[in-house]
Amino acid sequence: MAVYTQVSDEALSRFLASYDVGRLTSFKGIAGGVENTNYSVHTDRGAYFLTLYEKRVARADLPFFLGLMEHAARNGINCPVPVHDRQGRVLRELAHRPAALVTFLEGISVNKPGVRQCASLGEALARFHRAGEGFGLKRANALSVTGWRPLFESFQAHADDIARGLAKEIEGELTLMERQWPKDLPQGVIHADLFPDNVFFLDQNVSGLIDFYFACNDALAYDVAICLNAWCFEADSSYNMTKGRALLRGYTKVRKMQDNEIAALPLLARGSALRFFLTRAFDWLNTPKEALVRPKDPLEYLRKLRFHRDVTDVSAYGLAGDAR
Amino acid sequence: MAVYTQVSDEALSRFLASYDVGRLTSFKGIAGGVENTNYSVHTDRGAYFLTLYEKRVARADLPFFLGLMEHAARNGINCPVPVHDRQGRVLRELAHRPAALVTFLEGISVNKPGVRQCASLGEALARFHRAGEGFGLKRANALSVTGWRPLFESFQAHADDIARGLAKEIEGELTLMERQWPKDLPQGVIHADLFPDNVFFLDQNVSGLIDFYFACNDALAYDVAICLNAWCFEADSSYNMTKGRALLRGYTKVRKMQDNEIAALPLLARGSALRFFLTRAFDWLNTPKEALVRPKDPLEYLRKLRFHRDVTDVSAYGLAGDAR
Repeated sequence: MAVYTQVSDEALSRFLASYDVGRLTSFKGIAGGVENTNYSVHTDRGAYFLTLYEKRVARADLPFFLGLMEHAARNGINCPVPVHDRQGRVLRELAHRPAALVTFLEGISVNKPGVRQCASLGEALARFHRAGEGFGLKRANALSVTGWRPLFESFQAHADDIARGLAKEIEGELTLMERQWPKDLPQGVIHADLFPDNVFFLDQNVSGLIDFYFACNDALAYDVAICLNAWCFEADSSYNMTKGRALLRGYTKVRKMQDNEIAALPLLARGSALRFFLTRAFDWLNTPKEALVRPKDPLEYLRKLRFHRDVTDVSAYGLAGDAR
Repeated sequence: MAVYTQVSDEALSRFLASYDVGRLTSFKGIAGGVENTNYSVHTDRGAYFLTLYEKRVARADLPFFLGLMEHAARNGINCPVPVHDRQGRVLRELAHRPAALVTFLEGISVNKPGVRQCASLGEALARFHRAGEGFGLKRANALSVTGWRPLFESFQAHADDIARGLAKEIEGELTLMERQWPKDLPQGVIHADLFPDNVFFLDQNVSGLIDFYFACNDALAYDVAICLNAWCFEADSSYNMTKGRALLRGYTKVRKMQDNEIAALPLLARGSALRFFLTRAFDWLNTPKEALVRPKDPLEYLRKLRFHRDVTDVSAYGLAGDAR
């Protein structure tokens, strides 16, 4: 949360002068977002969003993220679009950090998505996958199965501080994932972090997608699995099959899933739960108690993982034969 | 800094439905501001600013602050204006906190105000003082001379942790202020916190004033003294007489100062420095080391206090006879 990097009025005015965006009329630091510093910027021509990339984002990845936003927008996705400066650059520097100015996307994310919103999210995800086709840049998923064990080992000694017996349970999950993780599924550009706070709605329909800073190349069905975890569980960690069915039907309406993708869903969802458990557990153990940012509860994702572990058939997710 | 209170999309939509402001299109938490939670709110009709008042602001004071914004705006001050709901209320409740929706004021505050900006600030301050005339509500200044000793006593035992000998020096200042603080100066509504971050400029000219949450009834010249401290010292704590002269000339162009106000300036400026020293020292000693909000350096205001202590004649501030 919070503005990590203060930008002065002079520095911002100088920065904006190299763009054709008119004259600065106001700027305010935006709270929320733990990775980067964000400002809402108004000029006499319109509203923009300025991001300064802090150290958790690798500079080398920025051309991928910014290029993807442009590519997706050109292919019909409503998302923030990087603004080019007069020299044609989208990646710049401000306050000694990589920085980019993007268009301000109006929209509201929902705290508690309903069934129809899950259906629309499924469609939007599939459209995003189709829009990613033909994008020239590549980025490996640093948080896929091979990245999980090193992450776990960085806090393994303290894992039982979160819950007793955790180290052993996670060790078992990792071993299984490393053996069984599917390698032959259709690949593409995935969002990899399409949680409700990264999706805007107008009533029941998705109106925009934001925050492409985990996007990468990976199995498309893995993105579906991430969304099942992020959208279809209730606050008490129970799986809402109606929402799951709506999401999957929405998705398959736009992009048909292959049989091997569908068969892999329980494992992908279990792996996705493990991935978010691991990053949350890491943050949980490494956030000072006094910090203003409350880390998210890792156990929420452990409960989801256990749900998927018990799934014996994909019909448990609500995907009926007719939707495939 | 930061959003203290999270407002859900449903709660905000319900809240806005009782206003005639159109339909919510986006809202974002604003970083910065240690007292309250602020959101930038867009609807299809325009831009607004939503404030949830946290516990440092007394609910009983809110009618004064909100009423003053309306009164000042009606009298020509460019400032945020509270929006009335359909029942005519400006003070509402949201997320279990007092809340108010105000118009979004475009504008940029400057980090390093120049001489011409100080001149414009002086004029704007005097216009604000005139605009306050006739405002029906009253609010005592809780941070005037009688409030300083209790504040000091709350951290006196640790004062020497900030700088050696501090407790003794401050004790002496308090005793002197309590004896000599002037009581017969022209009174009115003062802003009491008109620092550069609460003033918007368009080039060299003040375009707007914000953050009325310290406003109260007190000596008008005390407000001038606060501004001398906030605007006319350089980063190395040296007093810039050119800026001081510009500010005072700007002020007296709009509102003539009486002889006793001018004569009291060194004491008022010294007292104002003490007041900001005390609140900063309190925050300095009471902010956890790991907090994201870095407290402001109290010693900056001790250095200013010492400057004023050595002033023997108001001409030191740059106020020549012709400007009075």
